[in-house]
Amino acid sequence: MSNKNIIDPTDTNLKALFLGDKGENVDIYKDILNRLIDEHVGWRQNYMPQDLPVITPQDRRSESFQATVDNMNSVFNVLSSKMRTDSMPWHSAGRFWGHMNSETLLPAIIAYNFAMLWNGNNVAYESSPATSKMEEEVGHDFATLMSYENGWGHIACDGSIANLEGIWYARNFKSAPLAIKKVVPEALADKTEWELLNMSVEDTLDLLDKYQDKYDEIKEKTARSGENIKKLGKWIVPQTKHYSWLKSADIIGVGLDQVIACDVTNEYRMDVEKLEEVIRDLAAQGIPTLGVVAVVGSTEEGQIDRVDEIVALREKLAKEGIYFYIHVDAAYGGYARSIFLDENDKFIDYANIEEVYAKNNIFYDKNTWLTEEVYNSFRAISDCESVTIDPHKMGYIPYSAGGVVIKDVRMRDMISYFATYVFKKGADIPALLGAYILEGSKAGATAAAVWTAHRVLPLNVTGFGKLIGASIEGAFHFYELINGLEFKVGDKTVVMHALTHPDFNMVDYVFNEKGNTDLKVMNDLNDEFYSYASYEKGGTYENEFITSHTDFAVPEYGNSPLDFVKGLGFSDAEWEKEQKVTILRASAMSPYMNDKKVFDIYAEKIKQAIQDKLDAIYDVK
Amino acid sequence: MSNKNIIDPTDTNLKALFLGDKGENVDIYKDILNRLIDEHVGWRQNYMPQDLPVITPQDRRSESFQATVDNMNSVFNVLSSKMRTDSMPWHSAGRFWGHMNSETLLPAIIAYNFAMLWNGNNVAYESSPATSKMEEEVGHDFATLMSYENGWGHIACDGSIANLEGIWYARNFKSAPLAIKKVVPEALADKTEWELLNMSVEDTLDLLDKYQDKYDEIKEKTARSGENIKKLGKWIVPQTKHYSWLKSADIIGVGLDQVIACDVTNEYRMDVEKLEEVIRDLAAQGIPTLGVVAVVGSTEEGQIDRVDEIVALREKLAKEGIYFYIHVDAAYGGYARSIFLDENDKFIDYANIEEVYAKNNIFYDKNTWLTEEVYNSFRAISDCESVTIDPHKMGYIPYSAGGVVIKDVRMRDMISYFATYVFKKGADIPALLGAYILEGSKAGATAAAVWTAHRVLPLNVTGFGKLIGASIEGAFHFYELINGLEFKVGDKTVVMHALTHPDFNMVDYVFNEKGNTDLKVMNDLNDEFYSYASYEKGGTYENEFITSHTDFAVPEYGNSPLDFVKGLGFSDAEWEKEQKVTILRASAMSPYMNDKKVFDIYAEKIKQAIQDKLDAIYDVK
Repeated sequence: MSNKNIIDPTDTNLKALFLGDKGENVDIYKDILNRLIDEHVGWRQNYMPQDLPVITPQDRRSESFQATVDNMNSVFNVLSSKMRTDSMPWHSAGRFWGHMNSETLLPAIIAYNFAMLWNGNNVAYESSPATSKMEEEVGHDFATLMSYENGWGHIACDGSIANLEGIWYARNFKSAPLAIKKVVPEALADKTEWELLNMSVEDTLDLLDKYQDKYDEIKEKTARSGENIKKLGKWIVPQTKHYSWLKSADIIGVGLDQVIACDVTNEYRMDVEKLEEVIRDLAAQGIPTLGVVAVVGSTEEGQIDRVDEIVALREKLAKEGIYFYIHVDAAYGGYARSIFLDENDKFIDYANIEEVYAKNNIFYDKNTWLTEEVYNSFRAISDCESVTIDPHKMGYIPYSAGGVVIKDVRMRDMISYFATYVFKKGADIPALLGAYILEGSKAGATAAAVWTAHRVLPLNVTGFGKLIGASIEGAFHFYELINGLEFKVGDKTVVMHALTHPDFNMVDYVFNEKGNTDLKVMNDLNDEFYSYASYEKGGTYENEFITSHTDFAVPEYGNSPLDFVKGLGFSDAEWEKEQKVTILRASAMSPYMNDKKVFDIYAEKIKQAIQDKLDAIYDVK
Repeated sequence: MSNKNIIDPTDTNLKALFLGDKGENVDIYKDILNRLIDEHVGWRQNYMPQDLPVITPQDRRSESFQATVDNMNSVFNVLSSKMRTDSMPWHSAGRFWGHMNSETLLPAIIAYNFAMLWNGNNVAYESSPATSKMEEEVGHDFATLMSYENGWGHIACDGSIANLEGIWYARNFKSAPLAIKKVVPEALADKTEWELLNMSVEDTLDLLDKYQDKYDEIKEKTARSGENIKKLGKWIVPQTKHYSWLKSADIIGVGLDQVIACDVTNEYRMDVEKLEEVIRDLAAQGIPTLGVVAVVGSTEEGQIDRVDEIVALREKLAKEGIYFYIHVDAAYGGYARSIFLDENDKFIDYANIEEVYAKNNIFYDKNTWLTEEVYNSFRAISDCESVTIDPHKMGYIPYSAGGVVIKDVRMRDMISYFATYVFKKGADIPALLGAYILEGSKAGATAAAVWTAHRVLPLNVTGFGKLIGASIEGAFHFYELINGLEFKVGDKTVVMHALTHPDFNMVDYVFNEKGNTDLKVMNDLNDEFYSYASYEKGGTYENEFITSHTDFAVPEYGNSPLDFVKGLGFSDAEWEKEQKVTILRASAMSPYMNDKKVFDIYAEKIKQAIQDKLDAIYDVK
């Protein structure tokens, strides 16, 4: 059933879809939740209504029953106290500018609570027909979001596991031509090993179509056997690499020795010229490139790799017989592609985009964000083989919900288990999803939550696009507020500097004393500020401004922060000495900060809170 | 805080801890849930009470707000209809004898719903202080459950991922002595490569303690580099292997070619004599054994490997210089170890066990289940290196919640990322849990659910032991009912036969016509019965008896089913021809079937439902 059959066309009001920073919509939440609980209980009662309840009124009045309920209530008192004592107030409309966390969608929360009562396990269709179908629909939603015409997707437990599945695909596909040649030598008789190791996924799939009867035998000879893994070449990730990419290369058996970190530009995007150099150098040594990871929304900076340039590079190198797999790590930014799809899920022409945004009220005021570079980067995702997308990040779904999307549904047969493909009779849904993905048991409730969110907010400008727009607009309000903002602290002036013009909704920044040229002094200041603006000093519930932090240090980042550091007035020698810059980081996920009037109210509170923290740090009375 | 500080000593009444087969406890569920929602909203309101709500009364009355709520309600109508149309009635007290699914613990459901409102992400302490601490406590609960004195554990998304983490540990540890020798040659100067590949985890850990300053360098040279993986030897799993073990060996880069399926006995437990032969044969060829998987609660049969015999074999072979890692796949049976721990969490002496059971009302009537073999198998888990345990199976926690337990907390440093060990200041909790486990982002709500369940029901005979006992006792009622049960169907007599005396709470069985000697006829009958007793013919909501099924086929099971098949009167030739036996399968998880009076009521319903299905299959009016 398409969304259009469920919801009426309307100008969606995002404020109706959250519990609210002060719980404003708690009535809506409780009404729907309690009604759905009753509907569930009615279902239990009416399955074989002739069966009497096992728990009798006498049971319920017994001393042991009452004592057990008392114990349960005592435990809940402890649980509630712990949660309220020691949690992060990210629900605040405008005081939490830290880690990627915020209010999540009320429809997703309710759907999860409701579906959990059935406790479906989507590993197998047998145990969860309703939610298995929802997961299949969500997979198609994901594929449509990426403009994959023949794609497929599924929910994963998180982005790290989704990334691992991506490199699993890459590894097994890269080894497949070698396996085909072993099993059906005549199919690739004229190909050298180098050519086999540079065969595209598309060509490999077409070849496999011809030898379906030998598919199982071929799979046995791929990298899944444990053979040939070292031949497959290097796995290239941007220097801003998330540690999950090291873990993935370790786990998958490719090994950390095969991981190459490609330099990033001043904008913390992969340097595609450097990438070309690296790949050519490897080729010159006879070393293939297993694959390249393009990051759409880097964890620490929120920046967007030039996917279009990476794809163009692959097209160029293809003419020279070089091919590499491209996985897009869009764990953070994946949902943002919905801001580029029109109401029919077609990628909007750049020339028309302002018109579409105006028509759909994507921005409250104006679009100060979008560049053609970012636009092109998102568009080119459709040319890559697989994507990680996390509903629990920019999908505003509660943890944990990750996702994997593949360009061609046929790809899944390369990693699948069981010789015969088991499908539910008459349907296109795997009877055993666990045989086609990395994980096993998985909550049907997650599928219900994501499915419901996608139905309420379609993955285009009529739905999620608005929410993404609200987040980006709020981020730019914050960016414009803090960049260059000055504070008088005693006899010093402390200035805030943004790291980059944001590609998305994350604003990285530093504090520095005006005139300070000692990098350690700046790093210490930002470290100290973080401890005042996080859990570190305790009492987060009384904290009036909360942020996150990170270190850009030479072992991971190389010299990519150097231009920024020098722009702040530090010398090369300072950088050489300190080897790192401490950065503060705001993932601006609040759905409310797009309204400039509201933002401005919070802007005053933020400035005051920052002033108070700086005064405390400098011990100014 | 220990459980004893939260709950009063009481004879726990399990009926107070479930929603109920007919929703009998819906009042308790809603009371607690709504109270906790209010406590959460109070918390939101009182963080900076001077901040006014962002969602105003005017917003809430606006047309777009109301239209958006209407749309959300329309979507929930569709969701509810889908869930009620197409879900499995496993909540039934006595009609669902199928896949491992049942009612889950009400305290876990409520805790999840509640904690989800805070949406903590336990990947990092920073974003979830409250639930990160709960996960650490749960990890210690798991370690205590396994009698690991210096152990550690954490929640995983599912058993497949936990198993993958187990083989990751095994792979990296097996390669560690080679790495140590490379980095600190003098440490192992006198050791041959064979000796290095047969060094115990314990000895390796002690050696690593001596070279802490070189730890990072050593880690770089382990299998995580991609080197030496092929040297590490074979990974041995029981022939009843779950496909997740093939997937794990594929993913981890060890490869399917290195997996050996060890024969199982007639009781579907790993044949430890055969295991010894296999390991000795490999050693004779100079091939090490990377590790052995002992299964505690096999997925298809619920059987328990003789962990004690596997451990004893390792001790014996150690004298000959052979060592292998042991991972216990107790995804299904792990929680059952709580039936062997006394109120102080000590493993009960076998001589005293009936006394302890009587005192704690573990069985409603009597213990017809426990054998000394099963007892010894559970006890020996404490001698193995790592364990998979799934809260979402016998922990009665909603999906998805898996778990990993390691014997020695020092082990986690072998797979961890980041050179310096980052801990929250003054605490023993990793600041970045994601650096010590396979996954990344993970729901704090899962930790809250498991933590709450463990507090309400401690992992010993005073808590979970009772629930496990109820499940086993119900299974044995079912086993005793169906084994040998005869049905008149037209002029035929159809008899039910149990596969084994259950080691745990799973009852596998077949139907066969009396006198039938054609194996295909029996397989078809059971296949047909399954289609009448599952989703396959649709209308599960009207189905009066639901079960699960599986095939034991030669490619996976070898000839292990042969004795059973011959015992039913089929010839060797029939087995040779058919190559499989179709089995029906009941995971008896209902918490209510221990009461024989209640069971007997359902026994009549079950018999009638089976009679009706058989009549339909044989087209008897």
